Amino acid sequence: MADNDSLSEFLASAVDAARKAGDIIRKGFYETKHVQHKGQVDLVTETDKACEELIFKHLKHLYPTHKFIGEETTAALGTTELTDEPTWIVDPVDGTTNFVHGYPFVCVSIGLTIGKIPTVGVVYNPIIEELFTAIRGKGAFLNGNPIKVSAQTELITSLLGTEAPTQRDKLSVDGCTNRINNMLSKVRSLRMSGSCALNLCGIACGRLDVCFELGFGGPWDVAAGAVIIREAGGVVFDLSGADFDITSRRVAASNPFLKDALVDALRQAQ
Amino acid sequence: MADNDSLSEFLASAVDAARKAGDIIRKGFYETKHVQHKGQVDLVTETDKACEELIFKHLKHLYPTHKFIGEETTAALGTTELTDEPTWIVDPVDGTTNFVHGYPFVCVSIGLTIGKIPTVGVVYNPIIEELFTAIRGKGAFLNGNPIKVSAQTELITSLLGTEAPTQRDKLSVDGCTNRINNMLSKVRSLRMSGSCALNLCGIACGRLDVCFELGFGGPWDVAAGAVIIREAGGVVFDLSGADFDITSRRVAASNPFLKDALVDALRQAQ
Repeated sequence: MADNDSLSEFLASAVDAARKAGDIIRKGFYETKHVQHKGQVDLVTETDKACEELIFKHLKHLYPTHKFIGEETTAALGTTELTDEPTWIVDPVDGTTNFVHGYPFVCVSIGLTIGKIPTVGVVYNPIIEELFTAIRGKGAFLNGNPIKVSAQTELITSLLGTEAPTQRDKLSVDGCTNRINNMLSKVRSLRMSGSCALNLCGIACGRLDVCFELGFGGPWDVAAGAVIIREAGGVVFDLSGADFDITSRRVAASNPFLKDALVDALRQAQ
Repeated sequence: MADNDSLSEFLASAVDAARKAGDIIRKGFYETKHVQHKGQVDLVTETDKACEELIFKHLKHLYPTHKFIGEETTAALGTTELTDEPTWIVDPVDGTTNFVHGYPFVCVSIGLTIGKIPTVGVVYNPIIEELFTAIRGKGAFLNGNPIKVSAQTELITSLLGTEAPTQRDKLSVDGCTNRINNMLSKVRSLRMSGSCALNLCGIACGRLDVCFELGFGGPWDVAAGAVIIREAGGVVFDLSGADFDITSRRVAASNPFLKDALVDALRQAQ
């Protein structure tokens, strides 16, 4: 286990990298409206790659012995196994559809696992200038101010965050709308922001009370958010109520009061 | 029909009123986390009333002969019939659930109809500091910069905005999730922000390509957004494709290329 000084240094390095990547994202975000469709797709790919390269280069230079898992690298080279070594898990642009359309929920997500446990997390939305940070055991922050999960104790007055599935086969779509149909009678309302990492941060700062998502890209969507939620007093778990598995592409989260009610509701919604 | 100078003055007055109301909303927004649930509901009601009173007082003082329709006043006194007279139609806090939960899509919506036609529109989100404005025939603006609808021509690459119904009876919920189920195979993805007025502004500035909503509060949700969309080059219509009726509590909107495709898709989704 790294000592506290090291963890603070890791966080500072991740924030530096996220801010630099954020500059690239911000520039691209305001350019997407001025390029043709094919150009938009290229711009996403270019921005994704440029941000991941920048972040990896920045962190590898500082921490040459650490491991790295990134969305773009994985897309190119296949899955890298998560080990107990300190491992940076990076989504250079979370919310790529939002990025293309200019919808302002776009972020960089940088998480560090040690012993497979999410230990340092940075989620930065450069469009509305929100920086979420956490170190395991040291609390969670939004733009430097401490944050905590909501105090809601009833599902019926809770705000739920989820997303439409990336997969559009009938099974995935029916599963999604069946869950929504069932949940709508149990919660106050539903939000879809288009960013998994920002939904998790929404739980952490109490904007959302409960959230779940399945079939998202990979561990890079949740590595940073998981530690941010936990340090804000929240819980991260599998939709079934089982322990959270960072590699499973399934996640649910809430404040501690609502976990059982959410798991029950999701079970009924199957 | 009012002359151009009058319309510019009306817009400036509405912006003044919206900014003052925005100050109240911003203050309440950051307080909701620190009050108990009952207190939250009271805070919404108080904020809604305080903002509507402020806006009405501001505009009635300047335009004593104009008519006024507001969400709060209507809730207290019943529906006011829309006439051809210049009529200010005001939603003091659009996105009240977001307001309670601290989800940053909250706005003031102030529209002016003349001859029942939406002619001046102001939608102001004081949390992320976005001010959408339009005068009929004079273009639409975000924070003073001209905006226009997206150039998307295909539904399958479009971003759709809609909302969960306020009513939670089985018919409303099933209708909603059936539409979503059907639409998810036809669009790129789906966003739910929790604010009808901000969804309309999302169409106007090209963040969203198509949107629809039914069963929302009343004309105050759409009066400002309608003129902002039209001045940004977009179209506002009924979900059936028929002319937009500001009093119908049904609205669809898009850029001009996507209207027919959206109406067809909604017809198939019934």
